[in-house]
Amino acid sequence: MFVNRMPRYEILSEDAIATLDRGWKRIVSELGVEFTLPEALEVFAQAGQKVEGDAVKLEPEFVLEQLAMAPREFDVQARNPDHNVHLGGEHMVFASVYGPPFVREGDVRREATLEDFHNFTKLSQVFDELDSAGGTICEPNDTPLDSRHLDMVLALQTLTDKPYMGSVTSGPNAADTLRMTEILFGGREPIERTPAVISLINVNSPLRYDERMLAAMFEYVRAGQPVVLTPFLLMGAMSPVSIPATLAQQMAEAMAGIALAQLLRPGTPVIFGSFLSNTDMQSGSPSFGTPESAIGLLCTGQIARHFGLPWRSGGGLTASQSVDAQAAYEAMMTMLPTFLAGPNWVMHSAGWLESGLVSCYEKFVVDVEILRMLREEFTPLEVDEASLAYDAHVEVGAGGHFLGAAHTLERFRECFYRPLLSSTENYERWARNGGRDATTRASEIWRAKLDEYEQPPLDEGIRQELDEYVVRRRAELGD
Amino acid sequence: MFVNRMPRYEILSEDAIATLDRGWKRIVSELGVEFTLPEALEVFAQAGQKVEGDAVKLEPEFVLEQLAMAPREFDVQARNPDHNVHLGGEHMVFASVYGPPFVREGDVRREATLEDFHNFTKLSQVFDELDSAGGTICEPNDTPLDSRHLDMVLALQTLTDKPYMGSVTSGPNAADTLRMTEILFGGREPIERTPAVISLINVNSPLRYDERMLAAMFEYVRAGQPVVLTPFLLMGAMSPVSIPATLAQQMAEAMAGIALAQLLRPGTPVIFGSFLSNTDMQSGSPSFGTPESAIGLLCTGQIARHFGLPWRSGGGLTASQSVDAQAAYEAMMTMLPTFLAGPNWVMHSAGWLESGLVSCYEKFVVDVEILRMLREEFTPLEVDEASLAYDAHVEVGAGGHFLGAAHTLERFRECFYRPLLSSTENYERWARNGGRDATTRASEIWRAKLDEYEQPPLDEGIRQELDEYVVRRRAELGD
Repeated sequence: MFVNRMPRYEILSEDAIATLDRGWKRIVSELGVEFTLPEALEVFAQAGQKVEGDAVKLEPEFVLEQLAMAPREFDVQARNPDHNVHLGGEHMVFASVYGPPFVREGDVRREATLEDFHNFTKLSQVFDELDSAGGTICEPNDTPLDSRHLDMVLALQTLTDKPYMGSVTSGPNAADTLRMTEILFGGREPIERTPAVISLINVNSPLRYDERMLAAMFEYVRAGQPVVLTPFLLMGAMSPVSIPATLAQQMAEAMAGIALAQLLRPGTPVIFGSFLSNTDMQSGSPSFGTPESAIGLLCTGQIARHFGLPWRSGGGLTASQSVDAQAAYEAMMTMLPTFLAGPNWVMHSAGWLESGLVSCYEKFVVDVEILRMLREEFTPLEVDEASLAYDAHVEVGAGGHFLGAAHTLERFRECFYRPLLSSTENYERWARNGGRDATTRASEIWRAKLDEYEQPPLDEGIRQELDEYVVRRRAELGD
Repeated sequence: MFVNRMPRYEILSEDAIATLDRGWKRIVSELGVEFTLPEALEVFAQAGQKVEGDAVKLEPEFVLEQLAMAPREFDVQARNPDHNVHLGGEHMVFASVYGPPFVREGDVRREATLEDFHNFTKLSQVFDELDSAGGTICEPNDTPLDSRHLDMVLALQTLTDKPYMGSVTSGPNAADTLRMTEILFGGREPIERTPAVISLINVNSPLRYDERMLAAMFEYVRAGQPVVLTPFLLMGAMSPVSIPATLAQQMAEAMAGIALAQLLRPGTPVIFGSFLSNTDMQSGSPSFGTPESAIGLLCTGQIARHFGLPWRSGGGLTASQSVDAQAAYEAMMTMLPTFLAGPNWVMHSAGWLESGLVSCYEKFVVDVEILRMLREEFTPLEVDEASLAYDAHVEVGAGGHFLGAAHTLERFRECFYRPLLSSTENYERWARNGGRDATTRASEIWRAKLDEYEQPPLDEGIRQELDEYVVRRRAELGD
C-alpha cells in the first residue's frame, strides 16, 4: 500500500480553522443534527444531550470528548495478510468506484449486472494500484433486490482477497455482512480484534442521518468494524453555495456521527468522510473535478488532521458522459489534489464516470494510470552525490547524447515511470498501428487484464459455509 | 494577469539544494559550458574566465556575482497597456504553444500554414486566459523560409495587442524583430526603458549554446530585451537518467547563459528557463506529463526562488497523438504542478499536442479550460463569518434543499466556476443533443471564438511603416 511521504498542501490559516470551528459548533449546538432512528436519539439523551423531535442539539465540548476516543490510526485485515491495510497517518488506501447503477463498456451504456460486478471486482484484484474493490462496485440489477447484498459480499470475499466494504442498505443486511465476515475470518473474535469490513455511512445532508443508514451503522459499530461517516455535499443542493459554510456543515455532520459511534462503542474506529463538490448552477446537475471540489479536498485534509482523525475522500471524479478529455482532466483535477491532501481511504479511485451513475471499464484503466503516475510523483526524490551522476556528464560531455552512456545503460529499465496506457509512439507509427486513442487502448488493456485474472485460493470449508449461508438467507428473504 | 497567492509546494530540503549547488558548480568549473560563437568566448575571456576551445570554465562565484545583477522582477509592455505583464514574484504569465511544424484540426493532421498562424494568434487574442500568443505559435510552412520571421512578427504585432516573442533563428532575424518592435513602440528608447519583446534562447543541451541562438541572444540582450535561457532537457537524451543530475545540469546551463547576458549588459532582464521531461526508454521518444517532469517542475521553482530569478516553464504538455484522455490527463499533470510551482512565464499554455510537433485547435480549447479551472483553484479561499452562511442553514434546516435558499438566489451566478467546455448534462439530454465528446465540443468552441475575433486597432501610420519594413526586408532577403 502507498505511504505518502511528500508534504501536505495546506491552504487554511489558523484563523480560518478557528472560524470553521465556530461554524460547526454553532450548527451542532443551535440547529442540531437529526437522527431518524429512535435508538440513536436514546443514546444521545442518555449521554445528556438535548433531543428535540428527531434533532439532537449537541454540546461541542461533548462532541470533542467523544471524538478524542477515536483511534488516530488502525488496521483493517484482508483474508490475504499481504493485503492488510493501515488507515491513518501518511497511508493512502485506494478502493474502486462505489454505487453506480449503470456500466459503460466502449460505446455501450447499459444497466449493470452481476457479471459486471464480478468483472470489476476481478479487475480490482488484478491491479496492484487498488487496495480494495470497495463495495457496491456497480449495482447488479439482474439479481433479486432483497438478497442482492449477499451476492455482492460473496463476490467481494471470494473473487478478491483484499479488504472489502459492507452492505449499508439496512440493519439486517449489515448483519448478514458481519456474519459472512465472521465465517471468512474464523469468528467474531478475530474481526473484533482487527476489523475486517469497512462501511460507508452517508449522511442524508443537510443535517440528517436516516434510519436505514443508522441501523447499518449500529451493527457495524457494535462489532467494532470501522465506519466512514460521510456528509454527502453538493454545494447549492445539500449545502450552501459557499465552501467555508460547506466545510463547517461537513464538520458538524461527520462529527455528530463520530460522537454517536463513540457512544455506542468507545474507541471504535471511525473515518471522517468527505464527499464534497458543487452543483452546476446552469444545469442544476452535479459537477465533479471542479476547482471548488479541489479546494474542499485540500481544506478537508487539514481539518481532519486538526482533529487527529483518519479521513476519506474520493477519487477519479468526473461529470463526463464518456471517456473523453473532460473525463481525464476532471479525474486528474480530483486525484492530484487528493495526493496533495492525503486522505487515508480513497473511494472511487477507479472506474467512476458520469457523476457516479456509471462504472466504466475504460475509465477504470485511465484511473489506474493516473494512480500509477501520482504514486510515482508523490515519492520523495532522493538527492545525494550519487544521484548527481557526475560520471555521466564527464562521459558524455558537451553536445553529446546520454542514451548510450554507461550510467543510462545500467538504469534504463527502472529509471523512469513506465506507462500502462499512455503512448509516446510517433505519429506515423501510431497511425500505422490503427491510430487508437487512449480509450480504445484502455479497452484492450482491461480485457487482457481480465484474462490474466486468477481467483485467489480459499479454504474449501469456508467457501462451502459462505455458499450455504447465502442460499439459506436468500430463501429466508424470499428471493 | 494572474497572481498566484497560494502557497508554493516545495519538496527539496536545504540539504538537497546544497547538493544541487555543489553539482552545478562542479559542472561549470570542471567541465565548463560551450559557446560556439567566438564573440561570446571573448566576452568570457575578458571577464577573466578560462576559455578552452569552445568551452568556458566558469568560477562559480563569478557566475553568482553576474546573476546577482539580474532583476528579480520586471515588466514587459504590450502595445495595449492593459496587456502589459509583470515577470517575477507571484505573477504568472501564460503564452500559447511555441514551435510546432504541424497542426491538427479535428481528425486532420497537416503541415501548418500562415493561415493557421493567424488563427492561433487570433485565438490567443480572444481568450483572456492567455497573456501572450507567444512566438512561433506554429511554423507557417507555406511562406518563404528566409523572410518567414517577418510574417510571424507582423502577425503577432498586428493581430494581437498582447506581448509577443521574438525570432531567434539568427542574429539578423532578431535584429529585424527589434526594428519592427521599435516601429511599433515608437523607437529604441521606449523599449529600452520597458522591454517589449521576450525571446526564447534554448541551450543545445548538454552544455552547449550554439552560434545562431547566441547571435540572436546578443541582439536582444544589447537592446535590453529579456531572454528566457532554457536548457532543453529530455532526461536520457540530453541529460542523465536522474532528476537531481538533470537539475544540476539545468542550473549549470541556465546560469552560464545568464552570466553571459549580464556581462553583455549588466542588469538586463533574464528568465531562468526550464524545459525538463524524460525519454520513454522503451520507445526512445520523448514523454510529457510524466511524474518525473512534474517533480522537475516543483524542484525548478524552488531553485529559481533560491537564486531570486524569474523563471519559465510550460505548459499543457502531452505526448498524445490526438485530443483524447491521455492528452487531457498529461496536460493537467503538467499544468497543476505548474500552479503549485509558480513559474512566471508559462510557455505552451494552450494548443500543444504530440510532444510539441502539433499545434492543435481542439487542444487549445481544452488547455484554456484547464487554465480557467486552475486560476480558480489557485485563488485563496476567504473564510470569514459571512462565508459561513449561517442564515442559509437556519433557513433550510435539516433535510432541506439549498437551491431555493435566499443565500443561493443572491449568489447563484457567481458562486461557482462556470466551465467553457465541460458538460454536466445528464446522459439522456447529452445523447439527444448528439452525444458530442469534449473534443467535438472544443471544435465548435474555437470556431465560434474565431468568429468573435476583432482585430485590435492600430495607428495607420505605424501599420504602414511595419508593412513597408516587411516588404523591403523580404526583397533584401531574396524571397
